[in-house]
Amino acid sequence: MKDFKYYAPTEVVFGEESEEQVARLVKKYGGTKVLVHYGGQSALRSGLLDKVCSQLCEAGIAYVKLGGVVPNPRLSKAHEGIELCRKEGVDFILAVGGGSVIDSAKCIAYGVPYDGEVWDFYLGKAKAEKMLPLAVVLTIPAAGSEMSESSVITNEDGDVKLGYSNNLSRPKFAIMNPRRTFTLPPYQTAAGVTDMMMHTMERYFTKDDDMDLTTDLAEALLRRMKTAVFEVLKNPEDYRHRAQIMWGGSIAHWGLTGCGVSDDWATHELEHELSGMFDATHGAGLAAIWPSWARYVMHENLSRFVRFAVNVMDVPNDFTDPEGTALKGIEAMERFYHAIGMPINIKELIGKDITDEEIDEMVRKCSRNYTSTCGCLKVLQAEDMKAIYQMAR
Amino acid sequence: MKDFKYYAPTEVVFGEESEEQVARLVKKYGGTKVLVHYGGQSALRSGLLDKVCSQLCEAGIAYVKLGGVVPNPRLSKAHEGIELCRKEGVDFILAVGGGSVIDSAKCIAYGVPYDGEVWDFYLGKAKAEKMLPLAVVLTIPAAGSEMSESSVITNEDGDVKLGYSNNLSRPKFAIMNPRRTFTLPPYQTAAGVTDMMMHTMERYFTKDDDMDLTTDLAEALLRRMKTAVFEVLKNPEDYRHRAQIMWGGSIAHWGLTGCGVSDDWATHELEHELSGMFDATHGAGLAAIWPSWARYVMHENLSRFVRFAVNVMDVPNDFTDPEGTALKGIEAMERFYHAIGMPINIKELIGKDITDEEIDEMVRKCSRNYTSTCGCLKVLQAEDMKAIYQMAR
Repeated sequence: MKDFKYYAPTEVVFGEESEEQVARLVKKYGGTKVLVHYGGQSALRSGLLDKVCSQLCEAGIAYVKLGGVVPNPRLSKAHEGIELCRKEGVDFILAVGGGSVIDSAKCIAYGVPYDGEVWDFYLGKAKAEKMLPLAVVLTIPAAGSEMSESSVITNEDGDVKLGYSNNLSRPKFAIMNPRRTFTLPPYQTAAGVTDMMMHTMERYFTKDDDMDLTTDLAEALLRRMKTAVFEVLKNPEDYRHRAQIMWGGSIAHWGLTGCGVSDDWATHELEHELSGMFDATHGAGLAAIWPSWARYVMHENLSRFVRFAVNVMDVPNDFTDPEGTALKGIEAMERFYHAIGMPINIKELIGKDITDEEIDEMVRKCSRNYTSTCGCLKVLQAEDMKAIYQMAR
Repeated sequence: MKDFKYYAPTEVVFGEESEEQVARLVKKYGGTKVLVHYGGQSALRSGLLDKVCSQLCEAGIAYVKLGGVVPNPRLSKAHEGIELCRKEGVDFILAVGGGSVIDSAKCIAYGVPYDGEVWDFYLGKAKAEKMLPLAVVLTIPAAGSEMSESSVITNEDGDVKLGYSNNLSRPKFAIMNPRRTFTLPPYQTAAGVTDMMMHTMERYFTKDDDMDLTTDLAEALLRRMKTAVFEVLKNPEDYRHRAQIMWGGSIAHWGLTGCGVSDDWATHELEHELSGMFDATHGAGLAAIWPSWARYVMHENLSRFVRFAVNVMDVPNDFTDPEGTALKGIEAMERFYHAIGMPINIKELIGKDITDEEIDEMVRKCSRNYTSTCGCLKVLQAEDMKAIYQMAR
């Protein structure tokens, strides 16, 4: 097993009464002038934005608002936020929304105290040494960004989608009220669960398979997400199972399910090019890529794919045929994706055939002009990426 | 399910190379004059104390040492530490050891900036508003105090053992090197695993049984601890399984396995009187009490005891006889305790019959002179405590 670091300091307030804590927590973490950052109309329509703002107002905490964050959040919006924060003297950012809003907030928080161009961090040209403190009122469980150190931003100039991770960006607090997720449409609910499961699967499919406790916890989480998603698709107002999913989304990505093992992230990297090019929903894009990735790499650690089939997907173990068992696990995952309305290939994702040129373009971007690899269980060269995209087309 | 708060900010550095980080982390968290707090001779003999102190010295961080913490740590030692810290201007406490040393360090850290008597916190007469920052180099996995908010101190004046919990006391960082646990004797290893499992069992046996994910994670943890302890009793230098236990001890108590459910703690409270009176090993005392507690309360939530029997203890579920299945789970736990060298009653724990007078005295203390209850799954009055002690005698 590998030595590891673990750090997940976010203070969580979870439950139906959690939103009442916003102003108290902003004060506790030193916010005096807040940027309330949000996405589209849903935070307005639901009354959540008003609830947050009126609390801040009553507590005498000044704030400015910036909405309009879109899925696959844009660098230009972050630039707008950075400028606003500097002009208004903002010292705390409150993200009200899901992963896109949080990631946009992280980008702004990096940028405000930085003299250079914030995109440098995402390009790996610079490392953030300080940032504005930020916190979250979560409305869409999926990205896990409410407790994680990661964020992903799309630079429209070239449609490049890049991630940047830094422990400084772990939110100070996260407020999670499962009731806020009742109105999530089925597709978004399913894509969210796919994304959170993948955050743990990226850590589960590894060559280091002797940190048993990490693997056990990962499997417990994956099984529960699989069960809970059917309950909420059946009944969107099922508080109990909405709660499992909301909390599971945080656990899946804050680091617990990766302690002592290598992580892979090839499926995520391959997907970033897909959703970058077609503006697809990230979670759905993951489902479109994963089965092909899994078949391509499974022989790098066959016993792990057997374990997944048996312990997560409830496939009976054919001890005489590990490969057959592993493949049945991947097939079972495809049936699961279909059952929750997710695609299992690119055509199902984008509704048309992808062209050879588009695949080549994705390979070029994913390999940073053929200079870079992705993945860890199997380190993928550009030709491997191409093979996987073609299997998934 | 219940609304919940979750907060576990301790930065963990885990693995064989982790100890090299001590001085860097002390600096990061602002320590300029450190109290290095430890127990008996083992930290000296193993060279760990020298390693820590030489790192501090080389980094130019001043320190004073205070050893001599004993199991069931004493208030008098904490008083000694408080006085020393004040005299020396200590601003950071580094606990090098297991739960007793950490709990003693927490008591000192509460006491230094407090004008009154630190025991007030444990008596519930006062709430700590500030404390010295502290951190841990862990050598004995069991108490979970390296990441938890709790601590337990024994006041020799009346042999009263009391706990105090406060999020301020969560250590800033915890360094965990499984190799340091190779020399733990079998009895201490087994008692440690018993203790950590009980930290999660106190949260598992609850009336709120709809926070499924919490329960799933708890079961995964309990099963892994059960497996790992046999491996390390067979081979004390089994790094892989020592690591599962060390990390499991933290997870079991930092809060994850209690999210959204009530917690009980009756077994702990009943045990505190036992180890307070007989200076027994805490983990062993828990094993001596738990089976009797379980039989006494199981009808408060029979399905949960059935679930435990089936999912944790691998008892075949007799669907026609839930009570029989639940009882077989408790019996399986007794066999497990015996198999790892733990007692299953008080006589096995203390090596002699306990007298009626001693039981009455424990009941008196545990019920705070018949004014207080303990437990939650079943709220135990003094007569319930007496009945359980008698079942366990």
